[in-house]
Amino acid sequence: MNLKQMAGIEAAKYVEDGMIVGLGTGSTAKFMVDEIGRRVKEEGLSIVGVTTSKETERQAIELGIPLKGIDDVPYVDLTIDGADEISEDFQGIKGGGAALLFEKIVATYSKKCIWIVDDSKLVKKLGKFPLPVEVVPYGSQQLVRLFEEKGYAPVLRTTSTEETLVTDGGHYIIDLHLEEITDPIALGAYLDQLVGVVEHGLFLNIVSTVIVGGETGPKTIHVPK
Amino acid sequence: MNLKQMAGIEAAKYVEDGMIVGLGTGSTAKFMVDEIGRRVKEEGLSIVGVTTSKETERQAIELGIPLKGIDDVPYVDLTIDGADEISEDFQGIKGGGAALLFEKIVATYSKKCIWIVDDSKLVKKLGKFPLPVEVVPYGSQQLVRLFEEKGYAPVLRTTSTEETLVTDGGHYIIDLHLEEITDPIALGAYLDQLVGVVEHGLFLNIVSTVIVGGETGPKTIHVPK
Repeated sequence: MNLKQMAGIEAAKYVEDGMIVGLGTGSTAKFMVDEIGRRVKEEGLSIVGVTTSKETERQAIELGIPLKGIDDVPYVDLTIDGADEISEDFQGIKGGGAALLFEKIVATYSKKCIWIVDDSKLVKKLGKFPLPVEVVPYGSQQLVRLFEEKGYAPVLRTTSTEETLVTDGGHYIIDLHLEEITDPIALGAYLDQLVGVVEHGLFLNIVSTVIVGGETGPKTIHVPK
Repeated sequence: MNLKQMAGIEAAKYVEDGMIVGLGTGSTAKFMVDEIGRRVKEEGLSIVGVTTSKETERQAIELGIPLKGIDDVPYVDLTIDGADEISEDFQGIKGGGAALLFEKIVATYSKKCIWIVDDSKLVKKLGKFPLPVEVVPYGSQQLVRLFEEKGYAPVLRTTSTEETLVTDGGHYIIDLHLEEITDPIALGAYLDQLVGVVEHGLFLNIVSTVIVGGETGPKTIHVPK
């Protein structure tokens, strides 16, 4: 079995009848959404999904998973999502799929977050994976210049057809090629206060469980509080 | 003369040939843009304007002021803009006109900022004027709930036709009725790190000169550094 699929199916076991479930975005989350769709259809599982992107919304609708927006639920019981990098101390980088803003919004209002990854995503320190920063288009080139001055090796993300990528929220993404992030908390706080930065891909102190797909089967790690 | 017009005309005197000038938004800024337009037309003043809203862009184009976007200039020499409240220590609240995001972006890359107000805008402490917070639509009701819990008396801003107001950046505005802001720096930092908050109307340590229209004529205050 594909390692991403393995993690996705394992995570779907945590979904219980009556739950409000945050549905992540990306290639690994897609398997989890498929599996929840199967349980809804075959097992009569009754849940409400809260999606984190237009892409996942389309998939969930096709599968017949009932959906609500984040503003139409009091909270989310459990969010299951992928991650692009997870450090030894369980901090993460997300946003490779350009859905980091809505993913972070849904995660913020979730009682519990599970990240599902294949074992290649586990790293000692964050930073090899480029850190996505979602920015307001007006002023984005000024931010690119600022990040260049700081040595962050910024690249404005483009689509496969070389046009500037526009997120579901109508913003641009600047990927920072940092190689190693020594202090994710400090970097996150710095990015938060920059004018024009909407959100960044550092997901800090937010995950409760990590499920890793590996050659010997799925491994579940409960993050110490 | 109208006090707003008095301040606007006085501020336009600071604009010199060859400057890149940030053009603010709102009822007071409108007089300043009119006066710069007059100087361009009648005095042959040669400048490039950088606008802070679609509204000001339309006005400047009509007046024949040459324009560039903030990403097409290296920096801005001088930005002239209104303010909704200015405290004794020259911190400000802006955003009554819903243009705070682009206003803050332009101000951030400006060497000098002049605020133009009538004397009713000068206050001891900030907070009587509702503090605008620009937010991502997805999750905005969750933020309203959070602000309610904190006692911030939030109100989602609507248009004159009772629809939710959408900013030039495609976001919503939540106005916080705080009455008195004891620590603007701390409040700004708190709002900055909230997921879903794009920008807030606290303009801190950014203004260099304040021009106040009053019954006895315009008064110019140079802010101590």
